[in-house]
Amino acid sequence: MFKKILIANRGEIAVRVIRACKEWGIATVAVHSDVDKDSMHVRLADESVCIGSHQPANSYLNIPALMSAIELTKAEAVHPGYGFLSENANFAKVLEENNIKFIGASSKLIEMMGDKIQAKKIAKEHGLPVIEGSEGGITDVKTAKELCKKIGFPVLIKASAGGGGKGMKIVRKEEEFETLFSTAKSEAQKYFGNDEIYIEKFFQNPRHIEVQVLSGKNRTVHLHERDCSVQRRHQKLIEETPSPVLTDQIRKDLFERTVNMVSKIGYEGAGTVEFIYEDGKFYFLEMNTRVQVEHPVTEMVTGIDIIKEQIWIAYTGETALKQSDINPRGHAIECRINAEDASKNFQPSPGTIGMCHQPSGFRTRVDGAIFQGYKVTPFYDSMICKVITHGRNRTEAIQRMNRSLDEFVIEGITTTIPLHKILLNHKKFIESDFNVSWLDNEKVF
Amino acid sequence: MFKKILIANRGEIAVRVIRACKEWGIATVAVHSDVDKDSMHVRLADESVCIGSHQPANSYLNIPALMSAIELTKAEAVHPGYGFLSENANFAKVLEENNIKFIGASSKLIEMMGDKIQAKKIAKEHGLPVIEGSEGGITDVKTAKELCKKIGFPVLIKASAGGGGKGMKIVRKEEEFETLFSTAKSEAQKYFGNDEIYIEKFFQNPRHIEVQVLSGKNRTVHLHERDCSVQRRHQKLIEETPSPVLTDQIRKDLFERTVNMVSKIGYEGAGTVEFIYEDGKFYFLEMNTRVQVEHPVTEMVTGIDIIKEQIWIAYTGETALKQSDINPRGHAIECRINAEDASKNFQPSPGTIGMCHQPSGFRTRVDGAIFQGYKVTPFYDSMICKVITHGRNRTEAIQRMNRSLDEFVIEGITTTIPLHKILLNHKKFIESDFNVSWLDNEKVF
Repeated sequence: MFKKILIANRGEIAVRVIRACKEWGIATVAVHSDVDKDSMHVRLADESVCIGSHQPANSYLNIPALMSAIELTKAEAVHPGYGFLSENANFAKVLEENNIKFIGASSKLIEMMGDKIQAKKIAKEHGLPVIEGSEGGITDVKTAKELCKKIGFPVLIKASAGGGGKGMKIVRKEEEFETLFSTAKSEAQKYFGNDEIYIEKFFQNPRHIEVQVLSGKNRTVHLHERDCSVQRRHQKLIEETPSPVLTDQIRKDLFERTVNMVSKIGYEGAGTVEFIYEDGKFYFLEMNTRVQVEHPVTEMVTGIDIIKEQIWIAYTGETALKQSDINPRGHAIECRINAEDASKNFQPSPGTIGMCHQPSGFRTRVDGAIFQGYKVTPFYDSMICKVITHGRNRTEAIQRMNRSLDEFVIEGITTTIPLHKILLNHKKFIESDFNVSWLDNEKVF
Repeated sequence: MFKKILIANRGEIAVRVIRACKEWGIATVAVHSDVDKDSMHVRLADESVCIGSHQPANSYLNIPALMSAIELTKAEAVHPGYGFLSENANFAKVLEENNIKFIGASSKLIEMMGDKIQAKKIAKEHGLPVIEGSEGGITDVKTAKELCKKIGFPVLIKASAGGGGKGMKIVRKEEEFETLFSTAKSEAQKYFGNDEIYIEKFFQNPRHIEVQVLSGKNRTVHLHERDCSVQRRHQKLIEETPSPVLTDQIRKDLFERTVNMVSKIGYEGAGTVEFIYEDGKFYFLEMNTRVQVEHPVTEMVTGIDIIKEQIWIAYTGETALKQSDINPRGHAIECRINAEDASKNFQPSPGTIGMCHQPSGFRTRVDGAIFQGYKVTPFYDSMICKVITHGRNRTEAIQRMNRSLDEFVIEGITTTIPLHKILLNHKKFIESDFNVSWLDNEKVF
């Protein structure tokens, strides 16, 4: 096994990776910006190196500084966490060239899946349904109408050059098409000086579903799905597994097709394939070639430590898991806790944490990097920790989350804990009767 | 379901019960002594009642005060936790007479299993092996020798009236018997004025094994075993499941016989049957008619919330579980953390807790009642919390425990955390090569 791993990240995911390394007797190197010198990841790691000032570009995104830290500490491998350089093909390449193992996908695969258009092509080639639409812009109404009939109504038509909703129309019935298309075209011309129109399937009630995979040279396995449909402005707030809206038949198809694609492209490592799901059908969105924020819900139900498996695959090239080893039990939910003030339009709420008492007990887990005296700075993502609960079923997981959030004491800063309590007790959440736009369309808090 | 439960206990087990109630929407009443008014169980409960001064007899053992608190708060049921009144047949009887549900065994069963001699008879009647020995005192050397040959050497001979090791002899071979018997007799006469000798099987390498059961009117199920052989002066320090020393064949026999007895005596509730185990054989010790301190290790591997099941059985008289629902996964370990100073012969170390940062993360659980500012008083048991970890196997559970204890920060008082770290990394513990007397015979810390 690796003797020493450098964690090119901060906050809760750096702590998460350090925990996994410690359990394997792997020495850890934390890197940090100047303002993060007293952070938990620095305190828990065996060694730490300051790699620059608080701006991410100067520190957590600073490849030369990271390379120096690696050289200095003789780390054999780098875990990038999520965000920052985790999907940076160049960083992966520099490491490859220096014979330092990147605990993630190869630079080639990061590049391939990072290009959304190419990724969509690959997915389609390997049998994953993709969101149907015009591949480029259309100006001719006849061609456009034919395409819409093929996709099926409703469709979304928008200015190819557009943005901000201008020139965007939802066409619900064939009869409406011609009028709306010509309005969209003239608006596109007016606002963007270009009347090209892009067409794609419109989702009225979309859920966000994703499949966790672990893949080695020998084998690809899936760790079932996660449902991350509770979002606010495209930011996930609550994630859960299993999804309350999938049937076992759809699940089977989803998993088979996902594993097929991941295996065919020769993927190595942990990854997540994301989908839009509506009306019994799923559509490929993108593949994340890294660990996700919400990986703990999968860990809770499967009992598999995804970070450890990731390190194992990086070291051996193989996954030790067989599909038959993966038998999820019960239901798990994660609430992302942000240092934000909802009463001030969710603006970040930096400050020094006073009393800090985290919940625990049967099947409650907190992945965080906060403690009494920790200073939440305004320089990074406002997520300060995640609370994850596991129950025999969804109801019990929700009840346990309610109980856990009730126990959570964080003084000195404003957090989104009260909002999660509202969500968890909202009829729509309890009945899982919502889509990804719920919180953008309805004033829930 | 019950609408309101009073918890007749304090500390971590009161918090544990409150957590279960909250997850079921059951209102909770905490009772407390004057010094416990700011305790966590009081803070977390919906209501609280002061039931007397710090001496247990005046508060947590004060049945009239508890009955008043029940009347005052209109609680429908009482959870006694462990210790205090949890195995007090009189308390159970008073509650029965007042139509308040005692979440535990019936007064009749508590009484029956609380009498160790009677319990042993019952166990034997129902096919559980018991520790062989003279039923009473013996003075005649011939009768004594015959009995010893029947039990098999080594045997332990001790003064019936004795204590403190005086007049106690281990007879390893038949040849030594007559000399040692007469020495023991004369010592007994000298120290206790009574030369009656009691004989029982001597265990050279005993482990403490116990079986968790849940039993209702309709069915008794077992939740597998726990191994609690790491003890100091008969106090358990570390517990784990499964036991590293049992074979599946012995396990099967142990579980069948245990379930048979528990079911035959008409037991209702959660209970634990304790055994001595040596050389492939188990011997009934006693039955605890309550939840045990170490119940969380069983919860971790089975995924079953024992406290919730206990409440369910109390409410319905039935267990909803079938034996086929119980499929343990992996290995779990619990370390009991005491506020004690090992350098001062383990004397209690009361004081106010300063910084308090508890570990968390994948498969790490803390059951406790401590927080920053909490005052550990000298009036109660010195156990302040328990850390429980779960791994795919024993090695991983130990590694996770090491990692978790490394993260644990408790300032202001001295705890036994450093001792657990020594134990967890001791060759004998790692190889599970020890018996219940290990820490009394060897200077490990």
